[in-house]
Amino acid sequence: MQRVLPHGVSASRFDAALAAFRGIVGEAYVFATDEDRDTYLDPYAPGRPESHAAAAGVAPASVEEIQAILAVANRYKVPLWPVSRGKNLGYGTAAPAMTGTVILDLVRLNRILEVDEELGFVLVEPGVGFNDLFAHLQAHGSHLWMSAPAQTWGSVVGNALERGVGYTPYGDHASKVCGMEIVLPGGRIVRTGMGAISGASAWQLFKYGFGPSWEGAFMQSNFGVVTKLGLWMMPEPEATLTLAMNLPRESDLGPAVDALRPLKLGGIVQANPSIANVVRALAMKSSRDQWYRGEGPMPDAVLEEARAKADVGWWNFSIRLFGLPEVNTIHAKVVRSAFAAVTPTEFKTTEWHRGDPLEKSGAAVPSLAPLNVVNWRGGRGGHLTFSPVSPLRGVDAVKQYRMARKRFEEYGFDYYGGFTAGERYLNHITMIIYDRDDEAMTRRARDLYTVLVRNAAAAGYGEYRTHVAFYDEVATTYAWGGSALMRLNETVKDALDPNGILAPGKMGIWPAALRSRRA
Amino acid sequence: MQRVLPHGVSASRFDAALAAFRGIVGEAYVFATDEDRDTYLDPYAPGRPESHAAAAGVAPASVEEIQAILAVANRYKVPLWPVSRGKNLGYGTAAPAMTGTVILDLVRLNRILEVDEELGFVLVEPGVGFNDLFAHLQAHGSHLWMSAPAQTWGSVVGNALERGVGYTPYGDHASKVCGMEIVLPGGRIVRTGMGAISGASAWQLFKYGFGPSWEGAFMQSNFGVVTKLGLWMMPEPEATLTLAMNLPRESDLGPAVDALRPLKLGGIVQANPSIANVVRALAMKSSRDQWYRGEGPMPDAVLEEARAKADVGWWNFSIRLFGLPEVNTIHAKVVRSAFAAVTPTEFKTTEWHRGDPLEKSGAAVPSLAPLNVVNWRGGRGGHLTFSPVSPLRGVDAVKQYRMARKRFEEYGFDYYGGFTAGERYLNHITMIIYDRDDEAMTRRARDLYTVLVRNAAAAGYGEYRTHVAFYDEVATTYAWGGSALMRLNETVKDALDPNGILAPGKMGIWPAALRSRRA
Repeated sequence: MQRVLPHGVSASRFDAALAAFRGIVGEAYVFATDEDRDTYLDPYAPGRPESHAAAAGVAPASVEEIQAILAVANRYKVPLWPVSRGKNLGYGTAAPAMTGTVILDLVRLNRILEVDEELGFVLVEPGVGFNDLFAHLQAHGSHLWMSAPAQTWGSVVGNALERGVGYTPYGDHASKVCGMEIVLPGGRIVRTGMGAISGASAWQLFKYGFGPSWEGAFMQSNFGVVTKLGLWMMPEPEATLTLAMNLPRESDLGPAVDALRPLKLGGIVQANPSIANVVRALAMKSSRDQWYRGEGPMPDAVLEEARAKADVGWWNFSIRLFGLPEVNTIHAKVVRSAFAAVTPTEFKTTEWHRGDPLEKSGAAVPSLAPLNVVNWRGGRGGHLTFSPVSPLRGVDAVKQYRMARKRFEEYGFDYYGGFTAGERYLNHITMIIYDRDDEAMTRRARDLYTVLVRNAAAAGYGEYRTHVAFYDEVATTYAWGGSALMRLNETVKDALDPNGILAPGKMGIWPAALRSRRA
Repeated sequence: MQRVLPHGVSASRFDAALAAFRGIVGEAYVFATDEDRDTYLDPYAPGRPESHAAAAGVAPASVEEIQAILAVANRYKVPLWPVSRGKNLGYGTAAPAMTGTVILDLVRLNRILEVDEELGFVLVEPGVGFNDLFAHLQAHGSHLWMSAPAQTWGSVVGNALERGVGYTPYGDHASKVCGMEIVLPGGRIVRTGMGAISGASAWQLFKYGFGPSWEGAFMQSNFGVVTKLGLWMMPEPEATLTLAMNLPRESDLGPAVDALRPLKLGGIVQANPSIANVVRALAMKSSRDQWYRGEGPMPDAVLEEARAKADVGWWNFSIRLFGLPEVNTIHAKVVRSAFAAVTPTEFKTTEWHRGDPLEKSGAAVPSLAPLNVVNWRGGRGGHLTFSPVSPLRGVDAVKQYRMARKRFEEYGFDYYGGFTAGERYLNHITMIIYDRDDEAMTRRARDLYTVLVRNAAAAGYGEYRTHVAFYDEVATTYAWGGSALMRLNETVKDALDPNGILAPGKMGIWPAALRSRRA
């Protein structure tokens, strides 16, 4: 296997950089063998994982070591790709945008620095996983609830920075961030917001501080390395009430979304429900060949038969209410009456009360279960997530569903998708599930993704997140005003990171010297 | 009167710039006489208003005219101070940080570009006042509620950008901003978030977009001119229920704050209640000399007598609940039971139901009433607001109250203050009310402000906003890590505004060439 080197860095120069890294973190925490590097490859890559190969990994144990590593990187012009725990599945896992980037592996910065029961927040380092945080809260008899994505092995910090979501009223994790510590590419440590007051009393409590606030600019960003992050946690509610619904008809989508909108806007429904299509519901409990062995997408008749047999809906969702039991009961009545006009189907109701086992509550608990779905197609399951944002309106949901399904089927895939309802937006989350052992299918999956992104952008719908392989593809759809937003990103990038060492290419933001590499 | 010129710009050069401005906006919209300039002076200035005198004003009617004005400003190195409607009372009104700055008066950009009833947002230009927005919503029979500060003549955009607040669950206006259009100092127009997709469908609906998000960095900022701003509006609730309480004892403050905390964190109380002290309550309905004619601060015995006679509390607040009437009733019971342990005093309850006159609802309606309070001390009322942020805890409230009151009284002022409770923070809002016709008193007010800021910072409490005269004073308290946050602000400032023409000195952020001017 040929050695992977950073762009424009000779083998001897790179060796000198590695030696300097070893001097900082010790022999054991510089990973530079072929086997080491392989651990940073994306097992779900839509194509050859080697096209996003790391040159090495370096794992600091402290902020001071990060500063020292950045100094070396600046000296040798070695690019670094910070990962918190490297579990960004579906979006590249730990793999960098540019081959030859060195992984700055933050997994050893894994301290839970503060848990404030009274004021409801935690302060954590990037190496802390949701599993770790859960265990810590449980061990301390905490009354704070964690919000987490479906897979809980990932990083709390990394997830919030990438704008990941969970399933409680605190599920918009980015919106619950309060206060960051950031190491800038030049090595200076910044504390945002109230953290800039020495001995700050409200760093994790007041989001703004004095003057410009910076947290947003360091999310989905390559402007700095976030080393501490404050996150608000929800106090355990007295009860939750879950209303589950399987809508039997394809045409139920639009009316369901319109029924949901006033409930979201009026604050009746605070968590973000996700309306999953029939294939997503089937994939949770079965594999495709149990229903169909044909080549192209599953025909409607087959889908309908499978749907009825598996007792799932064409659209499936549940609405979970969190609060006082008597308030949940009142709000459940409002929800039922809103959907009475949509469908004769009744909600299935389950309740949880404080003291019952947490698993039924809606609180995040450690879980990897939903990964099963990638086996839908057989072989080594690959998945590519296309997830454009639209207004929270039935008409947009239907339009997006039709656009996407048509393309999925043209490319020979089952449309697998759903709509997560934010307060005012819908996130149309689809997955292209393919067999990674089938090269032609993998290529078709990539082609489909590209055409989906372009079609969506042409209709005014933008992606909110993507796989490292598609950063440029998606970034170029944000082209308003001569790509003015990207020019702003680049201006700030060049000012903060003149040597372009931090995560070149992330979200399509390339440093000046590498800008010609843009796909 | 001597002519006021921008720093380092000769009279003839400035005349050339003014001529160029006239060429852009027309003769009528360049304001350069002495009388013109006086209209931009701060009538509440804590000192000589002339120490923050504008050199002129220029009022564009469009984004294109702003671009052209910026080009002229860059050419002649003439600094510009953008104001939306110039009603930032207590914080400088329209006055610039640096004498000789030209006011970029945005009052003519006054279009309400969009009101979306279904999705609950508006898109407005900076010249739109809360009064204008209210009238527009009323005229169109809108079911959206505006949130506004006490004085409603100010700008909706300006208020949100300065992180002003209102009294409904949407009262944290900055948190309801979704999507901006910004003209950068170099003239490029940027649309943030989803606005960077051409024909964007979700610019005012999804806050993040793809990559770094920028809204926060353009608040309390001098990085650009915000020309369009999306703001979420609350759908009219079915009912509101108001619980008013006058706490009779000074010592009730701590327990009241502690009773409030779980109600705020648990989402029972969504708007931010404000616990006002006896002087604030008295000042709403009387002037000081009705109660006391002595020189120093009012003694406790006099305050207690006035309190009893005026039938106000030592601490006064109301909690307003918004939602379904039956839910409000349940939540009101929870509130009452939380405060039963604090005081035997009962809440006074009033209810509003959809269809009742709006004035009693808690919705923002046009009003200037609270300005009366500045007459407390007699003469031409001046006021200086000191408003540090602390944790939402009784112990912090009491500590802050004691610290501030002691200083107020040392400097001969009545402590006038209150505590506004956010979700996890308290904003201690005090006002130094003085007689502007009394030079010695005005000087004492300034001295008091400075010592309050320093004492607070030493205890870990930071100001969230201040008068133009004190930008540097406050900014320097945010000094953690070698003033790392200010260095970040300056790095970005220099990158975006190399000529330093936009609002030099705002929030203590000076461009490179003027950095030595920092107080």
